[in-house]
Amino acid sequence: MSLTVIGTVALDSVETPFGKMEEGLGGSAIHFSAAASFFSPLALIAVIGNDFPETHLDFFRGREVDLNGLQRLDGRTFRWRGRYDADLNTAHTLDTELNVLQQFSPRLTPQARQNKFVFLGNIDPRIQIQVLEQVEGTPFVAVDTMNYWIQGHRKNLLLALQRADLLVINEGEARLLAETPNLVKASRMICKLGPKILIVKRGEYGALVFRGEEIFNAPALPLEDIQDPTGAGDAFAGGLMGYLAKTGDTSFDNFKKAVIYGSVLASFIVEKFSMDRLRNLTREEIEKRYRQFHEISHFETL
Amino acid sequence: MSLTVIGTVALDSVETPFGKMEEGLGGSAIHFSAAASFFSPLALIAVIGNDFPETHLDFFRGREVDLNGLQRLDGRTFRWRGRYDADLNTAHTLDTELNVLQQFSPRLTPQARQNKFVFLGNIDPRIQIQVLEQVEGTPFVAVDTMNYWIQGHRKNLLLALQRADLLVINEGEARLLAETPNLVKASRMICKLGPKILIVKRGEYGALVFRGEEIFNAPALPLEDIQDPTGAGDAFAGGLMGYLAKTGDTSFDNFKKAVIYGSVLASFIVEKFSMDRLRNLTREEIEKRYRQFHEISHFETL
Repeated sequence: MSLTVIGTVALDSVETPFGKMEEGLGGSAIHFSAAASFFSPLALIAVIGNDFPETHLDFFRGREVDLNGLQRLDGRTFRWRGRYDADLNTAHTLDTELNVLQQFSPRLTPQARQNKFVFLGNIDPRIQIQVLEQVEGTPFVAVDTMNYWIQGHRKNLLLALQRADLLVINEGEARLLAETPNLVKASRMICKLGPKILIVKRGEYGALVFRGEEIFNAPALPLEDIQDPTGAGDAFAGGLMGYLAKTGDTSFDNFKKAVIYGSVLASFIVEKFSMDRLRNLTREEIEKRYRQFHEISHFETL
Repeated sequence: MSLTVIGTVALDSVETPFGKMEEGLGGSAIHFSAAASFFSPLALIAVIGNDFPETHLDFFRGREVDLNGLQRLDGRTFRWRGRYDADLNTAHTLDTELNVLQQFSPRLTPQARQNKFVFLGNIDPRIQIQVLEQVEGTPFVAVDTMNYWIQGHRKNLLLALQRADLLVINEGEARLLAETPNLVKASRMICKLGPKILIVKRGEYGALVFRGEEIFNAPALPLEDIQDPTGAGDAFAGGLMGYLAKTGDTSFDNFKKAVIYGSVLASFIVEKFSMDRLRNLTREEIEKRYRQFHEISHFETL
């Protein structure tokens, strides 16, 4: 086991132009773990309430996912309600119920403390710091966050970033954090805050990876049928970190492959609501789609 | 000589967050021709008024650009005034003066009629059709257009598209033309209208190329200093068509290379106002940037 993830477990209610779902399985830790579990064993650190349907965990029980760090607290599970219009790049939040998330204080199992790869999903940076205080050694730490924490909890976020090797955020968040519209300039400023690598997620446009002066432009596969974009960013991070944990190789060349595996998992998860597309996803389908990503991006050098 | 282009020659007044220009050299045929002239001789078909500064043409006189199809009419040259805010992807038109463009009826020189590659820049589709009526044989025809013609002059545009091999438009235009938000579906519908290849330009996100079921995702180079995005799309088309005309090879592999050369020229033209960055651009700089595009997009296959 080599990967620890902290994040949210949620009951999501989502409406898109292609359908709707009431109280389905969601949350950053869920989408991340479902994707990462195709590559690496992992320890899931999160919290649920006593209303959480146990059957939602069956998928993870069938895989090498350690649920001993999943706390059950008295109260209702975290809930999110959102809507996407024709522009599937933008989620409109209709309602958020924090519920048991407000009492959450993560406790890592002995194994989770020793894992060499740690993903701090989008959650209160104070909780991210609590995780960093429990890990042993110097794992590879990746951090996700969002506008809310950048704007209102910047100081704590900067503390978490000091310990980060990788920051994974979207375009608007990168501009907000660096306070500049230019992404090349933003990447330089952000990398001074701690992370050696910055990944800027751009939804249907793929992702940009910055490491020092090196840049990698990861493509997105143009998809014909998208049912629900929720979780794409977390599945991206899950595929990426899962592959890094599997190979233990953070060289830039291997990192690029990891980014493509992340993109592959993101491209699958949006095909159905929740993480349902990953339930019967096969290794062969993943490899086939990786090759498709290569095919659409490859061109001859001079 | 193997490339004919029709489009506008304009006096552009542009303001961006990084500077401003009054009545500088602009227009689709100018940006296209400046870029294409690095690869292939070409015949420029357009119209100017008697107020047009002759020195604006010096750049082209020093290259293999045939200006015999450039008509001078009594009256004022076409003018465009626009502004870009921090989001450099969107041009805000402040004023347009059609002037001599309203009397323009293109007349191709004997050589221009025989060229094997033809680019119909963004202009009234009736004028695009007039060009198609004058060409001889079956050249490779590329068409550009915009929302205005798609919405208000659809019938004429569809006539022009029937004769097109390639349509080069931006994302919003593709969705408008196909009447669907999904680009994969849009590409299928558009290719039924005539073009065998569709290129969807996505500004700082690069471009998507659709040919049948084949897709190519062309990256954009993240740029640190952009002064003026005007003409990026035309320089893209110019680099692309110039390279195709130079090589005479429209296989998909060579087409991809042409798309990257187009992206390279677009990445240069935005570095300064008008087409000024192309004035002292060298072949070596072009090749170096091509390699940069390859570097940022390359990743290992399985």
